[in-house]
Amino acid sequence: MRILTGLQPSGKLHVGNYFGAMQPAVKLQDEGDAFYFIANYHAMNTSENADELRENVREMAVDFLACGLDPAKATFFRQSDVPEVNELAWILSTVCPMGLLERCHSYKDKIAKGFSPNHGLFAYPVLMAADILLYDSNVVPVGKDQKQHVEVTRDLAGKINDKFGKDLLVMPESQIRENTAVVPGLDGQKMSKSYGNTLPIFGPKKKMRKLIMGIKTDSTPVEEPKPIEGSIIIDLYKLFASEADVEQMKADFLAGGFGYGDLKGRLWEAYWEFFAPMREKRDELIADPSYVDRVLAEGAEKARAEAAVVLQRVRKAVGLI
Amino acid sequence: MRILTGLQPSGKLHVGNYFGAMQPAVKLQDEGDAFYFIANYHAMNTSENADELRENVREMAVDFLACGLDPAKATFFRQSDVPEVNELAWILSTVCPMGLLERCHSYKDKIAKGFSPNHGLFAYPVLMAADILLYDSNVVPVGKDQKQHVEVTRDLAGKINDKFGKDLLVMPESQIRENTAVVPGLDGQKMSKSYGNTLPIFGPKKKMRKLIMGIKTDSTPVEEPKPIEGSIIIDLYKLFASEADVEQMKADFLAGGFGYGDLKGRLWEAYWEFFAPMREKRDELIADPSYVDRVLAEGAEKARAEAAVVLQRVRKAVGLI
Repeated sequence: MRILTGLQPSGKLHVGNYFGAMQPAVKLQDEGDAFYFIANYHAMNTSENADELRENVREMAVDFLACGLDPAKATFFRQSDVPEVNELAWILSTVCPMGLLERCHSYKDKIAKGFSPNHGLFAYPVLMAADILLYDSNVVPVGKDQKQHVEVTRDLAGKINDKFGKDLLVMPESQIRENTAVVPGLDGQKMSKSYGNTLPIFGPKKKMRKLIMGIKTDSTPVEEPKPIEGSIIIDLYKLFASEADVEQMKADFLAGGFGYGDLKGRLWEAYWEFFAPMREKRDELIADPSYVDRVLAEGAEKARAEAAVVLQRVRKAVGLI
Repeated sequence: MRILTGLQPSGKLHVGNYFGAMQPAVKLQDEGDAFYFIANYHAMNTSENADELRENVREMAVDFLACGLDPAKATFFRQSDVPEVNELAWILSTVCPMGLLERCHSYKDKIAKGFSPNHGLFAYPVLMAADILLYDSNVVPVGKDQKQHVEVTRDLAGKINDKFGKDLLVMPESQIRENTAVVPGLDGQKMSKSYGNTLPIFGPKKKMRKLIMGIKTDSTPVEEPKPIEGSIIIDLYKLFASEADVEQMKADFLAGGFGYGDLKGRLWEAYWEFFAPMREKRDELIADPSYVDRVLAEGAEKARAEAAVVLQRVRKAVGLI
């Protein structure tokens, strides 16, 4: 079973990214033949310049490896190291009704958010379909917002198979991540880069501590009981602490006698400890850049070999060779 | 000076194609470094199936060589033998405003003609821009209907250069073919596959003769003078006969005493003789398919080497490597 996931290199990873995408991806590498790629072609649509793109790709590679991606289990590569994906995207375009793309929410959402309407954003689902189909992927774990794109992929695969031969492209299934933890941002809204409320996974100790200690709280005096419902402190603490510790914190909220500073300090410690092994691994990776290069090069080689088989099959069937 | 022309492999070549595109292209191979490619990616948008596409590409290669394309002078290749063009097309897409494509006439025209609105037709100008920019082309000879696409290409090159570095992409110029002969079809309208009024360049002698002898004429009796204005016979004859022969035919029209059958017979002979050397060359090419394969393989190798230089430059500048 091939599992495919693309990751947008969109800058510093935060706790929401970790629990929403990286932790599930790391778990999945034990359940099938995982292909994980850093989607730098897609990121070109929104990146400011070449250096930013390069740095974000590098950071994503280091962070993902630090968080437990095991190159012995999963194939890990940069999207642009398999440029063949663009040829498959063109082939898919020739059978892709405009209406299919015009109906995609994510394009409209991006425009509503202020991105300028460019063809790369519009054609994004076609390239994503090629990303998936190029590797005969069976399963595509996605958030709800990406489900429509997997449906577009299935539509396009069906059209190609109808026109050029049954079973030419493997029909992928989406696997919706329903149960991922809700990760509140530092202001209580959903953690998201666009709300400016993120807690990075990796960052300077002092600065990270300041972020957590700066979480806004109500003015309940130290000695009084504190509301646990909707507490950002508790909701974040749940991600990092054992169940027993979470129960203890809830009890301390309700009992009173603990100030918010104390409680946030406990959250801070749990956060810092949770990411400690990853931070250590990350420091090692930063100290040995050639290792990261080697991982990506080996991943690219493996992915490219798989892509070549599929593309050769497709080129023959559609009459390009 | 690099000159680039793409040719759509759209089936049997007719006299309109010859004078509109092939003859000018053959002349241009002496005036610069000509790159001519058979646009099979583009043709996927309108071809019915894989076999049709393959046959049309093969026929285009043979016919173009038969008509005088000299592989010692021009680089001649299949578009799909340089799949790198698709990567450049993606890069251009990321800076391409949707409005630029929405304003293109050729997409609207195709839809009006009954093609289903698909993304490949819509994105055609982006791939065409990549076709041009991938080879640092200076000059793109086009018919008036394609001028807008060269302007799109210039727009996109400008946007890439603004964002990623002055002089990254070479700015191409269109060269509009103003003076090409107007080629009437067998019914007097412009010769065009879509009007079903074409006279093929190559075809079985009997069938071709029947097409010419079947041109509709008026009912002027043999002995009387005949109108020369708007005569399809004379307008086609001009393409194949010497000036003196054309004057003679005009005089014979005006003098009377020659039936339309005689006059069409003269057109038939001039047509058959005009294409005789090309027909001979074509028979040789058909008898030696490995020669055509070799020409296309060598063309592809040369084109790919040029493309690699440009693409490497672009990938570096945009942050993909």
